[in-house]
Amino acid sequence: MNSAFPRQLVSTKQLNPKNIQLFLEKTAKMEQALLENKSSQIMQGKIMAALFYEPSTRTRLSFETAFHKLGGKIISVAGSGSTSIKKGETIYDTIKVIENYADIIVMRHAQIGAPGEAINATQKPFINGGDGAGEHPSQSLIDLYTIYKEHGKIDELTIGFVGDVKYSRCIHSLTYLLKNFKTKLVYISPKELAMPHEIKKFLTENKITFKEARQIETEIKNLDVMYVNRIQKERFDDMEQYKKLKHSYIITTKLVKTGKKNLIVMDPLPRVGGILTEVDQLPQAAYFRQVKNSVPVRMALVDLVMNG
Amino acid sequence: MNSAFPRQLVSTKQLNPKNIQLFLEKTAKMEQALLENKSSQIMQGKIMAALFYEPSTRTRLSFETAFHKLGGKIISVAGSGSTSIKKGETIYDTIKVIENYADIIVMRHAQIGAPGEAINATQKPFINGGDGAGEHPSQSLIDLYTIYKEHGKIDELTIGFVGDVKYSRCIHSLTYLLKNFKTKLVYISPKELAMPHEIKKFLTENKITFKEARQIETEIKNLDVMYVNRIQKERFDDMEQYKKLKHSYIITTKLVKTGKKNLIVMDPLPRVGGILTEVDQLPQAAYFRQVKNSVPVRMALVDLVMNG
Amino acid sequence: MNSAFPRQLVSTKQLNPKNIQLFLEKTAKMEQALLENKSSQIMQGKIMAALFYEPSTRTRLSFETAFHKLGGKIISVAGSGSTSIKKGETIYDTIKVIENYADIIVMRHAQIGAPGEAINATQKPFINGGDGAGEHPSQSLIDLYTIYKEHGKIDELTIGFVGDVKYSRCIHSLTYLLKNFKTKLVYISPKELAMPHEIKKFLTENKITFKEARQIETEIKNLDVMYVNRIQKERFDDMEQYKKLKHSYIITTKLVKTGKKNLIVMDPLPRVGGILTEVDQLPQAAYFRQVKNSVPVRMALVDLVMNG
Repeated sequence: MNSAFPRQLVSTKQLNPKNIQLFLEKTAKMEQALLENKSSQIMQGKIMAALFYEPSTRTRLSFETAFHKLGGKIISVAGSGSTSIKKGETIYDTIKVIENYADIIVMRHAQIGAPGEAINATQKPFINGGDGAGEHPSQSLIDLYTIYKEHGKIDELTIGFVGDVKYSRCIHSLTYLLKNFKTKLVYISPKELAMPHEIKKFLTENKITFKEARQIETEIKNLDVMYVNRIQKERFDDMEQYKKLKHSYIITTKLVKTGKKNLIVMDPLPRVGGILTEVDQLPQAAYFRQVKNSVPVRMALVDLVMNG
Repeated sequence: MNSAFPRQLVSTKQLNPKNIQLFLEKTAKMEQALLENKSSQIMQGKIMAALFYEPSTRTRLSFETAFHKLGGKIISVAGSGSTSIKKGETIYDTIKVIENYADIIVMRHAQIGAPGEAINATQKPFINGGDGAGEHPSQSLIDLYTIYKEHGKIDELTIGFVGDVKYSRCIHSLTYLLKNFKTKLVYISPKELAMPHEIKKFLTENKITFKEARQIETEIKNLDVMYVNRIQKERFDDMEQYKKLKHSYIITTKLVKTGKKNLIVMDPLPRVGGILTEVDQLPQAAYFRQVKNSVPVRMALVDLVMNG
Repeated sequence: MNSAFPRQLVSTKQLNPKNIQLFLEKTAKMEQALLENKSSQIMQGKIMAALFYEPSTRTRLSFETAFHKLGGKIISVAGSGSTSIKKGETIYDTIKVIENYADIIVMRHAQIGAPGEAINATQKPFINGGDGAGEHPSQSLIDLYTIYKEHGKIDELTIGFVGDVKYSRCIHSLTYLLKNFKTKLVYISPKELAMPHEIKKFLTENKITFKEARQIETEIKNLDVMYVNRIQKERFDDMEQYKKLKHSYIITTKLVKTGKKNLIVMDPLPRVGGILTEVDQLPQAAYFRQVKNSVPVRMALVDLVMNG
């Protein structure tokens, strides 16, 4: 097994247990350094290009925060309105340009597969910051680290995914990542938003235990992790269907209390139309702790991608 | 009287004479250091989040300049089009996320009261960078420092506000701030854009001498400061009314020369449809000197909010 | 001849042979320092304002990269949607404000002549980052350096411009710059997009050898440099005419191979609808090498404008 961390991270399928172990250890060290207010300069003289062609707050800002905390400098694009993408330039050409400016490129794009086009253009370190309904590997590394930190382990856990399982790039990437562990997966969604066939095929081929369900009420009792993802308006062509489905799962205090004692509730956020704010007060509410993990995770990830 | 400077500045109502004294002294020191080209590193390792969900040039860029000059680093949002706000996220949730990245948050938002929602979410240092027609405390500190520097005092001055008194957050915030001084205030506006009732109530309750007027020509003779604010298109629902009112007050050289010898003309800018460019050449034209004060003022403010 | 480099660069007409010689030497030094990974801090404590009111990727990001690599800090505007320009502020006023924040200003604006209005407002170092169909001096310095590096000289070369010769600010600026050399110029365009009269007058007055043509096939044999510029959609009011003209010149491998052995193909990019990707593999394809030159060129330019 190759222990070298990928220099260009497009999909969590690229990660093996050794990579993940290295990542978990590196993140814990970064977190400790942040707690002790130790400054780092390992990215001194380095430039990150943060190319966000799709709306983003937390991903862009937390990558930028992470890179600042490592002593690097940043060039940013936020939105496609003010760039050459609007002039009709291909992703390939854009990246052929940007690789001359930056030492690492993080890109978000509305189009599935855009990162593949990007890495055709460059050998530079690259992180997929989310490609449409495709993948979002850095988010799923935050999720994995959060589960690990909250439960002290990942193996043997039962993890339920609730909401838009079809279009959620976070759920797709976390699913691929969990192939490296002995977990049971439960996908709870309306049938219109069920897991795509090719991902179910991946699960079967990799002998990962999973089931599909429609009701959270009947499933919650078995879960160690309830991972909620909002129904994403921007993925729907048909607004009528969006309206019909958007409130499929309302996560209430009452519901959460029917779960196991050590259940944690996660959400990559924003949580529009999913978890009620009343849940925030419960110890089970792990989503803001999850956000807090994003900075050390992205510090570790940037370091691993650039320095192996 | 509590001399501690507020860690979260939403309204100038929060400031007392001791705070203001401290602020004026700190700003003078910052200004001196800039003049002497002395570099500061007091914000080294610190990150400012500049969240500007409403259009801004001078406020965002001068906060960023101020923070750069103190040795800090910045993460920015300019416009709401490229963020999770667009996905429907609440301000509360956005700030719960951002507080994990930044050591201080500056936020501009179109909605009055948005800063209140923000500080419910965080204990981190916070500055309201303008909330709709609500307040704009950092601008009014620039205004106060400018008056102080130009006139050598604030007490005993007669200050006239000209234009959109109803919706001008700058005028509201400066009004609240002037409660701490012995000034006479004159509000000159079309009746449709007169001072809101609750602010007049504040003035009466605090025994502040003020009057309302419609004509600048009859009032200018008494003024030490003429504070102009454009009629703000973005605050009108009715474009017919905007068109009718937008040229209510045209400030000409001829008009300014009818004022006192030591009159100064201020404007938080942009000055669309108010002060003519011919006025720029007069010594009374203080609005570009006012802009120049924005950097030392915001350096001082950031320092006070973060370090007391 | 005045050897002092202009502090405010609006047009390449301002540059004389001594300035250009200095620029070429400075750029070569910057390039060498980048190759050797030597860090520079000559802009420490300095702030660049990058004001891009028109869409841009490469110009803004490469100026920012250049300034980062010199140790400076940056305040940016990307797009006009989020600024006071939208509130109706004049360029003059905007720059009167920004000059208080920044040590150097780079501005892109959709309106020809905007940089002239800007430098009326400030004595600060200023670089025109592109004004509509006007000029783009920093791009043409990249182009000049590229030609110099690729051919080892500029004099005696025949340089063909292909595409939108009328509206291409890159071609206009490079034309003015080449006045300082002994080159032959060929402008190949549809008649609707031919070189404007006043630039032809400039060429004649300066005794520069040039011709106009319609077909690239007949001209390519004589060229040492083929400079392609896309037909720019954003310059057309009439979309029918744009559609008719947009594919006027398709640059294929077959075409390029009919040229001289040492022909180089340049493009300021994006290359929408012009050079086919198949050409990328040819040694003649110099456009990505041209991009690579943008960082040392802009480092040198910033230094020259600020420090003479």
